[in-house]
Amino acid sequence: MSLVKVGVIGIGNIGSSHVQMLNRGQIEGATLTAICSRNENRIEWVKNHTIGDIQVYKDEETFLNESEIDAILIATPHYSHPELAKKAFDKGMHVLIEKPAGVYTKNVLEMNEAAKSCGKVFGIMYNQRANPLYQKLRDLIQSGQLGDIKRTNLIITDSYRPQSYYDSSKWRATWKGEGGGVLLNQALHQLDILQWTTGYMPKRIRAVCSLGKYHNIEVEDDVTAYVEYENGATGVFITSTGEVPGTNRFEVVGDRGKVVVENEELIFYQLTQSEREFNTSFTGGFGKPEYRKINIPVKGENANHSSIIQNWIDAIIKGSPLLAPGEEGVKAVEITNAIYLSSWLNQPIELPIDVDFYYEKLQEKINHSTFEKQNVSNVTLDVTGTH
Amino acid sequence: MSLVKVGVIGIGNIGSSHVQMLNRGQIEGATLTAICSRNENRIEWVKNHTIGDIQVYKDEETFLNESEIDAILIATPHYSHPELAKKAFDKGMHVLIEKPAGVYTKNVLEMNEAAKSCGKVFGIMYNQRANPLYQKLRDLIQSGQLGDIKRTNLIITDSYRPQSYYDSSKWRATWKGEGGGVLLNQALHQLDILQWTTGYMPKRIRAVCSLGKYHNIEVEDDVTAYVEYENGATGVFITSTGEVPGTNRFEVVGDRGKVVVENEELIFYQLTQSEREFNTSFTGGFGKPEYRKINIPVKGENANHSSIIQNWIDAIIKGSPLLAPGEEGVKAVEITNAIYLSSWLNQPIELPIDVDFYYEKLQEKINHSTFEKQNVSNVTLDVTGTH
Repeated sequence: MSLVKVGVIGIGNIGSSHVQMLNRGQIEGATLTAICSRNENRIEWVKNHTIGDIQVYKDEETFLNESEIDAILIATPHYSHPELAKKAFDKGMHVLIEKPAGVYTKNVLEMNEAAKSCGKVFGIMYNQRANPLYQKLRDLIQSGQLGDIKRTNLIITDSYRPQSYYDSSKWRATWKGEGGGVLLNQALHQLDILQWTTGYMPKRIRAVCSLGKYHNIEVEDDVTAYVEYENGATGVFITSTGEVPGTNRFEVVGDRGKVVVENEELIFYQLTQSEREFNTSFTGGFGKPEYRKINIPVKGENANHSSIIQNWIDAIIKGSPLLAPGEEGVKAVEITNAIYLSSWLNQPIELPIDVDFYYEKLQEKINHSTFEKQNVSNVTLDVTGTH
Repeated sequence: MSLVKVGVIGIGNIGSSHVQMLNRGQIEGATLTAICSRNENRIEWVKNHTIGDIQVYKDEETFLNESEIDAILIATPHYSHPELAKKAFDKGMHVLIEKPAGVYTKNVLEMNEAAKSCGKVFGIMYNQRANPLYQKLRDLIQSGQLGDIKRTNLIITDSYRPQSYYDSSKWRATWKGEGGGVLLNQALHQLDILQWTTGYMPKRIRAVCSLGKYHNIEVEDDVTAYVEYENGATGVFITSTGEVPGTNRFEVVGDRGKVVVENEELIFYQLTQSEREFNTSFTGGFGKPEYRKINIPVKGENANHSSIIQNWIDAIIKGSPLLAPGEEGVKAVEITNAIYLSSWLNQPIELPIDVDFYYEKLQEKINHSTFEKQNVSNVTLDVTGTH
């Protein structure tokens, strides 16, 4: 295959951006062949903002059965990602899903099974994996230069959202429509970065989610989670959509130093010896291992969606390795599920979680919801500059 | 009074430093008149490292009854601070206690009652209050420039200690001898800064203390605490003596901006309008209030012990206001007690705490201790460069 025919389903904020990217030829080896949206206005928008002959569908089944696409980019609301992906795998399509992989771990795992059986190229839009800062951090950890990890601290509070963002769609920030708030939507990238750079999944999580703290929504917009790892390391993860200017800071402490990623800069404090060795051998009472403060040059531009789409197309055409395999999407989703459970039950949650139990609890949230969304504007927002 | 006759009791790491400071005339209006130590070696050290006629006592009662001092600086191990202070107040002395004010809230409150009845000048060695960075932070908050506080994040992991530190005295890092570890000793300054700069005491705390995680000790050397405030704000407090180079970073987020104190620098991100106002009035979906990044010049040198001693002497002679009134020492102690309780019971703890209950639980820790200290060197360490 030298030119992959791509279809986009879901022409909301982010889908619209992908449509333009593909249609403008910004992805080498890909062409925008078809789109699908239930919303007449969005179909009109596609007709007015694309060039060439784009097949247009209102119905998902017809789109999947009749369009001439090899590969599908799924940009619908969260809940539908696993079901749509499974249907696309059934049709033998390559699949790229927007994040999150899904809302609850149970059907994300089912999607992963379907992907495995199908054998097509399956990617997920974890575009922060294309961020050279996090790639370098991952290298430092995985190559052992940081030593055994002791502590992680990730503050991601710079995805501020005003009330009008939540009012822009009926499904947003509801248990039924989105299945969660800042965790599943804005902070999911960093939850993936947390597990991807360290290579560790938490083994236990204690968390507090504040629901509608800064906005008139029924889901969480402010979260603090405490995580514990198998090796004894601990960590804190903080996110909120109610702070300005917010913070985006990731600190990882190891036996051989510390890394801080903040303000688009990576600083590595490198010890000249293992702290654990120093601890037992030094006899002076007050003293610490020597260290160097190293600012590591990081090449390339910031992560963006086009890197992930291009990587997915390259994987289809050339067999290039995927930066963000779709199957790995479940990890951040499971972390969010554990955080929700811990907050709902007010107790520590062990991972892997009981996926059936989480599904039940989520259904309770949906079924017991009495929240009425007000002032819904049903507008599509320009995502330029967001993640 | 134009020259205050000061006595120092407890000639350990920090007491020795105070003795030299007073004896070298570094505190205006004060003279070192007497010292008291049970340890012959430390008495010898005083004789060899001071000039002039210093009264020397081995017995605490004799020291309090017979020495010709007006004011006492208490630098003994933690447990004894409240009892000694009460005895000194009984004798009509001015008192400056080393931190912590005590180990458990109950007898610290009793000490405060005694101080009130006595009416003498009562200070505590919270020398970080003399740090102009924290003074400026406090001004920004107390003057309302930061707006209502939303979140605090304080990481204080730069007081690294190797095993030989803990081996230097038998009482160190035991429930019986010290009553706690990094919280009561190294991180107490920052717990005070947390409450002093914000003006808020937590109303609820959830915490995990890891005991002997990085050292062969029976108390905690690694702590993560999640705090909630009356106004709905939340915060995280992290401390450890097992990390190098460690972090000393305090972030405070308010409705009108954010302050970060790190690397001896204060940066104020000042919004041009209230976030709460922007949230309801902005209609564009994606957008945030404008802000300015302001690096606030901070005058003066870093906090040190001499500032607090000088301030205490000035309060005695001239009636100057105390920067760190002794009565306020109870606040950080109560926060540590709540953190310990939460960790021991694995549940959230409300403040004010039940002081009798905490005392009981601490006695259990002491009575059930089976820890045997090994390799105790009984050396006095040079504290130059520590806090």
